[in-house]
Amino acid sequence: MGLNSNRVENFSGNEATIIGVSTPETTPSSPPLEVHRVCLPPKATTFQKLKHRLSEIFFPDDPLHRFKNQTSLRKLVLGLQYLFPIFQWAPEYDRRLFRSDVISGLTIASLAIPQGISYAKLANLPPIVGLYSSFVPPLIYSILGSSRHLAVGPVSIASLVMGSMLSETVSYSQEPILYLKLAFTATFFAGLFQASLGLLRLGFVIDFLSKATLVGFMAGAAVIVSLQQLKGLLGIVHFTTKMQFVPVMASVFKQKDEWSWQSVVMGVGFLMFLLTARNISIKRPKLFWISAAAPLTSVVLSTILVFLLRSKARGISIIGLLPKGLNPPSSNMLYLSGPYLALAIKTGIITGILSLAEGIAVGRTFATMKNYQVDGNKEMMAIGLMNIAGSCSSCFVTTGSFSRSAVNYNAGAQTANSNIVMATAVLVTLLFLMPLFHYTPNVILAAIIISAVIGLIDYQAAFRLWKVDKLDFLACLCSFVGVLFISVPLGLATAVGVSVFKILLHVTRPNTLVLGNIPGTHTYQSLSRYREASRVPSFLILAVESPIYFANSTYLQERIMRWVREEEEWIKENNWSALKCLILDMAAVTSIDTSGIEALVEIRKMVEKRSLKLVLASPVGNVMEKLHKSQTLDSFGLNGLYMTIGEAVADISSLWKCQP
Amino acid sequence: MGLNSNRVENFSGNEATIIGVSTPETTPSSPPLEVHRVCLPPKATTFQKLKHRLSEIFFPDDPLHRFKNQTSLRKLVLGLQYLFPIFQWAPEYDRRLFRSDVISGLTIASLAIPQGISYAKLANLPPIVGLYSSFVPPLIYSILGSSRHLAVGPVSIASLVMGSMLSETVSYSQEPILYLKLAFTATFFAGLFQASLGLLRLGFVIDFLSKATLVGFMAGAAVIVSLQQLKGLLGIVHFTTKMQFVPVMASVFKQKDEWSWQSVVMGVGFLMFLLTARNISIKRPKLFWISAAAPLTSVVLSTILVFLLRSKARGISIIGLLPKGLNPPSSNMLYLSGPYLALAIKTGIITGILSLAEGIAVGRTFATMKNYQVDGNKEMMAIGLMNIAGSCSSCFVTTGSFSRSAVNYNAGAQTANSNIVMATAVLVTLLFLMPLFHYTPNVILAAIIISAVIGLIDYQAAFRLWKVDKLDFLACLCSFVGVLFISVPLGLATAVGVSVFKILLHVTRPNTLVLGNIPGTHTYQSLSRYREASRVPSFLILAVESPIYFANSTYLQERIMRWVREEEEWIKENNWSALKCLILDMAAVTSIDTSGIEALVEIRKMVEKRSLKLVLASPVGNVMEKLHKSQTLDSFGLNGLYMTIGEAVADISSLWKCQP
Repeated sequence: MGLNSNRVENFSGNEATIIGVSTPETTPSSPPLEVHRVCLPPKATTFQKLKHRLSEIFFPDDPLHRFKNQTSLRKLVLGLQYLFPIFQWAPEYDRRLFRSDVISGLTIASLAIPQGISYAKLANLPPIVGLYSSFVPPLIYSILGSSRHLAVGPVSIASLVMGSMLSETVSYSQEPILYLKLAFTATFFAGLFQASLGLLRLGFVIDFLSKATLVGFMAGAAVIVSLQQLKGLLGIVHFTTKMQFVPVMASVFKQKDEWSWQSVVMGVGFLMFLLTARNISIKRPKLFWISAAAPLTSVVLSTILVFLLRSKARGISIIGLLPKGLNPPSSNMLYLSGPYLALAIKTGIITGILSLAEGIAVGRTFATMKNYQVDGNKEMMAIGLMNIAGSCSSCFVTTGSFSRSAVNYNAGAQTANSNIVMATAVLVTLLFLMPLFHYTPNVILAAIIISAVIGLIDYQAAFRLWKVDKLDFLACLCSFVGVLFISVPLGLATAVGVSVFKILLHVTRPNTLVLGNIPGTHTYQSLSRYREASRVPSFLILAVESPIYFANSTYLQERIMRWVREEEEWIKENNWSALKCLILDMAAVTSIDTSGIEALVEIRKMVEKRSLKLVLASPVGNVMEKLHKSQTLDSFGLNGLYMTIGEAVADISSLWKCQP
Repeated sequence: MGLNSNRVENFSGNEATIIGVSTPETTPSSPPLEVHRVCLPPKATTFQKLKHRLSEIFFPDDPLHRFKNQTSLRKLVLGLQYLFPIFQWAPEYDRRLFRSDVISGLTIASLAIPQGISYAKLANLPPIVGLYSSFVPPLIYSILGSSRHLAVGPVSIASLVMGSMLSETVSYSQEPILYLKLAFTATFFAGLFQASLGLLRLGFVIDFLSKATLVGFMAGAAVIVSLQQLKGLLGIVHFTTKMQFVPVMASVFKQKDEWSWQSVVMGVGFLMFLLTARNISIKRPKLFWISAAAPLTSVVLSTILVFLLRSKARGISIIGLLPKGLNPPSSNMLYLSGPYLALAIKTGIITGILSLAEGIAVGRTFATMKNYQVDGNKEMMAIGLMNIAGSCSSCFVTTGSFSRSAVNYNAGAQTANSNIVMATAVLVTLLFLMPLFHYTPNVILAAIIISAVIGLIDYQAAFRLWKVDKLDFLACLCSFVGVLFISVPLGLATAVGVSVFKILLHVTRPNTLVLGNIPGTHTYQSLSRYREASRVPSFLILAVESPIYFANSTYLQERIMRWVREEEEWIKENNWSALKCLILDMAAVTSIDTSGIEALVEIRKMVEKRSLKLVLASPVGNVMEKLHKSQTLDSFGLNGLYMTIGEAVADISSLWKCQP
């Protein structure tokens, strides 16, 4: 080792004309490098590796770390707290927390009641089911759930998807009992699916619905839902049951004679009121109660208005008689065999995954704000169990709602007790206040839905996607267009497909970069990115920026040989010192498979046919292990493997010096 | 910058008890580091990036580089040579090359004739079609193909798949004309598909059939084919048309009364002869001509034997009358509309992709041996065009055969002219020698097929897969079992699915490693892998070994926070200096999407809530670009981004020294 002047022998004295050239080991600040042996990772049996792998897949958060080094009694308490998070906050509950929770609970109740009724209509279910769903599930969540700010109840997306999927096969107006049965059954399967994902710790499945996909999906769904509400807003009686853009618009304009001016006036008026309230709250978050109170205010005002004008306003359809009383049991209504079972399962899985994605995302958002942990897999079990329980007590799919949770958070909720307060308010409503909704006009529900879903259209996020990542934007666009024009499952599937395709594309055509030395250091960086980086004479240093897999092994082989060819051509043209060594920087090759190993062997053969030496620098642990196991490592020999590029360059140069 | 002693203030004097600890910047051989600015990649417009991206996807080999800086005439010649590789070797063709080609051509002809007849039977086609297919396609390939050693003709896998897929719907014995039409049509679509893949430069599609998948698939197919040959070997007349293991075995044992001892004796005898010849050639590659001549010898011997015993050997079925003459045109037999069109297209695409995979792999293998280039996309066009032409001249799917190409190579073939010699030999056979095959027994064809496909079972490769990569082995097993028990397309699809799943699994659950300093250097390596690596007090250095995508952003967020938690617990227990800074080594994060960026922002927030500093070290170009575009870069500030871990540690330590 040491300085080396021999290796620039072919160097014909034209340094001045070539930009960015240096001989790194001659700069004063970098001393000669000691060469380190490249280590294999510590030995592990197949079983140990499998165990490690499985624990990373299923228990990345190490859920049992709390229990380490604790007494048995403490372990029992911790176990109870783990299973029922209510035990975490209940012992320390005091009047101050209670006051906060009562205020926030009543605030979200005033939102939950009109939204519950509206979203039930969105799912083509009787309005009362929406109230039932705002009673039982929040109670169960407050015992099992680990988020302190999640406001539980029906949400627009899941309601919409359930309504659209079931209505395409069964019509509520023609077969109400069958439709109800299917809705409860779908809820049951949604809960079962969610709970199993949590139990099997497969929570990462919902990660495949990327942010980009969800942005597009929610915007598409919001447009669809808003258009559907034209039925209520215009007072149309005969309307399509389909959900796509084209049939809905056709339906709107075909039934022009059914439009009712009273509905339009009232609907547009209250919609303006709701949107204004929403805008005020967005601009001044402290005034959150304006948008929180607006829906209930609209319902009260419009109901009084319709009641007063009841003899004159015939064009306005009303909710009508709602039964008083608590949730009736519905476990006898589960539809577990018959021709529509597949439909119920499919609907359950899709609404389940969507409501899970919303609930978990909302829970995580507020947990990060208040710096506490939400355990994804446990949340899934909580949401799943509450849906299973819901399906047996006349509820449809529920989850944590984004809009109501935000209101809950702003109103100062401290624990899941705000859900219990809300459920109590709904209980009172169910027991005593139902007759008051008799004259509530349907048009007001349409206005509430539109004002709620319009916030889901996040064009700014879409614009950011476009700016940062075109393929993410494509996934977003696919889910938007797919949902709008084809169907919810297909739109989602396409978007997930695009996202996966993006990963595969990155793997299939990885970047390869030519590296150069940063003067004064042993660091090597991309020549095109760092202007100060300079080529090292006689070396071609290539960084491969991806694992080497079957899907890219042929490409990499060709591409690397093309770099070598181009380098040799460049050397010929520029009269530069002849190429003697190809160094592959393997730092980003985080994995390799059997095809990849073969490709490396091929590259070595091809490079040696050109009388070049192939050297691997900084291989990661598991690549080393695979090379070792396949006996490829031996063929690289003593001077074929280095811990860093710097050591490789220094050592090989000094070797050349010794053996000219 | 400079040395820093202040940062070990919390360090309570128990160095001796803790293994592998050093303060890297105080070791004598590493001087203070100069800090380099982290550069963005050079600016490029969306269009430029798209252009670069597309050229990497479709033209990774830069096919036009030959034409740079050439005169027009030279360009014309090069263009001709590019389109018709025959012009590359024809001008320099001499008697020496010709002699080699004649010898090798005649050798492969003696293999091609019996194999052609056998493989046609494998596809349930009349034997003569196999000879037709050994005449026209080789001629076309010799003009268009760029491999000098590929021996073109029918191959076992493609014949088997075509036979099995068509026979499940249409029976040759009941509707011979329809079956023939479908076979030619499937060949046409196979060619069309192959040529389009080449023309659209989508050759990488076949890369998704990984080596592991192919090993399993070929073994499964070989078993199926061998079992199918029990029909011929046992002389059974009524046999299932299904291809799966269970019905075939059931068929064999149900028809016990049809077994003919004459067939069995003759078949097993010649099979032993063929296998012995094969084994000799494997052990001594110079004796390749023994296994090359064995099939023709068997045909001749068995035909003579049957002719002599023709009055006695009634149990032995024979080929019968074969028409003399050249390929009849069959373009009028293409089935381009009707109920079976979908079947023909599906069969065409699957046989097309399989035969392509075999042809390209074989071509590449021998090209590497003789150090010349085979252009994948051009080969696809050559194979595709020869199949399109074949479908119009009574041929079925052909490609480069592995076994015959190996014989061709060993026999000393020098150019594609050996294919022309072989085609001439087949021509002579077609014109004059057909009556000689009248008494050839079917049992000998079965023996030839079995001895040919048995070499496809590469249990050693499967064992290597098991040893090196368990998931590759799983893909191999899936395609083996799938092909054996379910169906060819499903088996292949499962195997491709497993391969893709493997990529996704690696992305979904990437490795994160704790790094430590290698004493005396600015290099940081995994603590678990390098025993000499030592923790740097107050720093936690994590390497993320994967791009950060939607599929792993949540996981990484949780996992990194778990590392931080565990590190803090470890520090508490060991009374070590408090953690102050988390450095993420981004060298292997070769790509990031919008979810990934959000995850980074979240991690920064969560880390800052614990009063730690988050620093990114050695981010790659396109990650920098995305961080910049999403304005995340600014939030990391001046001391949040470093070119290497070494610079980050040195600079931040010296900062702490200045501001205690």
